[in-house]
Amino acid sequence: MTTQTHDAGLPLLGCIEAGGTKFVLGVATGPDTVLRTARVATTRPDETIGAALDFFRTAAADFGAFAAFGIASFGPVDLDPRSSGWGRIGDTPKEGWRDADIAGPFGQAFDCPVGFDTDVNGAILAEHLWGAARGTDVAVYVTVGTGIGGGALVAGRPVHGLRHPEMGHMLPRRHPDDRDFAGICPFHGDCLEGLASGPAIIARWGASLSELPEGHVGRTIIADYLAQLVVAQHAILSPQRIVFGGGVLATPGLLDLVRARAEVLAAGYFGDGGDGLIVAPGLGDRAGLLGALALAQRARR
Amino acid sequence: MTTQTHDAGLPLLGCIEAGGTKFVLGVATGPDTVLRTARVATTRPDETIGAALDFFRTAAADFGAFAAFGIASFGPVDLDPRSSGWGRIGDTPKEGWRDADIAGPFGQAFDCPVGFDTDVNGAILAEHLWGAARGTDVAVYVTVGTGIGGGALVAGRPVHGLRHPEMGHMLPRRHPDDRDFAGICPFHGDCLEGLASGPAIIARWGASLSELPEGHVGRTIIADYLAQLVVAQHAILSPQRIVFGGGVLATPGLLDLVRARAEVLAAGYFGDGGDGLIVAPGLGDRAGLLGALALAQRARR
Repeated sequence: MTTQTHDAGLPLLGCIEAGGTKFVLGVATGPDTVLRTARVATTRPDETIGAALDFFRTAAADFGAFAAFGIASFGPVDLDPRSSGWGRIGDTPKEGWRDADIAGPFGQAFDCPVGFDTDVNGAILAEHLWGAARGTDVAVYVTVGTGIGGGALVAGRPVHGLRHPEMGHMLPRRHPDDRDFAGICPFHGDCLEGLASGPAIIARWGASLSELPEGHVGRTIIADYLAQLVVAQHAILSPQRIVFGGGVLATPGLLDLVRARAEVLAAGYFGDGGDGLIVAPGLGDRAGLLGALALAQRARR
Repeated sequence: MTTQTHDAGLPLLGCIEAGGTKFVLGVATGPDTVLRTARVATTRPDETIGAALDFFRTAAADFGAFAAFGIASFGPVDLDPRSSGWGRIGDTPKEGWRDADIAGPFGQAFDCPVGFDTDVNGAILAEHLWGAARGTDVAVYVTVGTGIGGGALVAGRPVHGLRHPEMGHMLPRRHPDDRDFAGICPFHGDCLEGLASGPAIIARWGASLSELPEGHVGRTIIADYLAQLVVAQHAILSPQRIVFGGGVLATPGLLDLVRARAEVLAAGYFGDGGDGLIVAPGLGDRAGLLGALALAQRARR
């Protein structure tokens, strides 16, 4: 836990990056004034959310009342404000978390509005406000790590629609050198997440992409799958910026391979996005918590 | 050419559905008051646009001045209002039409604002206002005919982004019974348009889908490719409604095959859109011209 001093004049915002392995908690008045942060392991909902409530209760005693909360959550989540399930986790394979109420406890405990969205919708919102997607009208944030997710922003607003984008579950063409692997997605087998997420990489090559020797075909294969996501995004949404984050993208040179392969597959058809089309996050590891902050700011309005 | 009487109190709108084979022209004050229509073959830009200008000049003499024009055009088109190429056709294989100025001549001749967008963006706008996509926040219109195109609407506004969606150029997985056909897209070979458009169907089976005998594998193959577009839309945009129009979709039973196949591929992951997720156009063949009308109404504001 870290703490900074607080300018009492600014409204206090509670920020939660609710991940499948940990919750990152923050108390902030703006993107550059995060007053206190903490991490809580994602175990059982009552335990994890209870620990988060304790953290924020202590912060309220120290800093004053919260004006709003923002929660950027792992999914699937219910984002429909007219639904009785709003603010809850959906049909997740993560034990104990199906139908878990994430947003409700914080609104009730602190009697303030709660902004709630997917982690990746939060991230693209933050990247649009303060990072690599500034000045765009249509932009996406993709994270490639334990899972693959993508959030979309159109005209400054995260896209929800029927539920919310689930970009990791598109169906790429199988790479000719990757025919034997069945994929690990419990829903689709060899969807993008089933083929190109961190666990899928380890499942067939026994190591992360960074650990594979130079010239290993794995990097070419993963770049091909991620480039197919880029082409699908071009075709359906025509983003002006595609921000790629997550652990797998930390592999040196991978983003360049994705760019090069996407250019070959697109064959010049979708307009010229230039070198700035496919980029790394401008906010680095802070995109998650700052996404929650952006959601809190929107909830407060 | 057909003509109705005109209520002089309502602003007069010029509507152009600019297609690759014909321009459909309309003079209207609203969706139910189309006063006059005509068709002009798409030959050379000067000839076709000249004939359209003549039609609207005569209409102006009969009905009065135009308040705005709306043009829903074949593509690719330049939709960037800051670009010197705004209102023009882009890199089309259609002879003589590359860089053709579609919007400019009408704004100049009739000294009024011009709304300009893709035909499919116009169609989803019209379906959202008056047809099958009413009440949705995120919706798409797909046409499967001579080509395959898709328009997207988010929060009542057509999506442009880097250029505009080009849904026909996503890359579906090849169906196991369709391995030998190379596809006919000059850019991508076996992209969706290269595999499932009307000309692609005729290229490998010598007949349209409706003409093929009952039980022919062609319908299963085309339904599979179109269902893959549905899955890609789920993954990237999460539409609440997917409107499928165009000549190929007139094949009896095809829309049901697409629905059933999309359900199998999605494996229940993307939320339950129910029977109303994938639908035929509510406006039938009028979606094109009414799309132009909707664009004219927006330009007038």
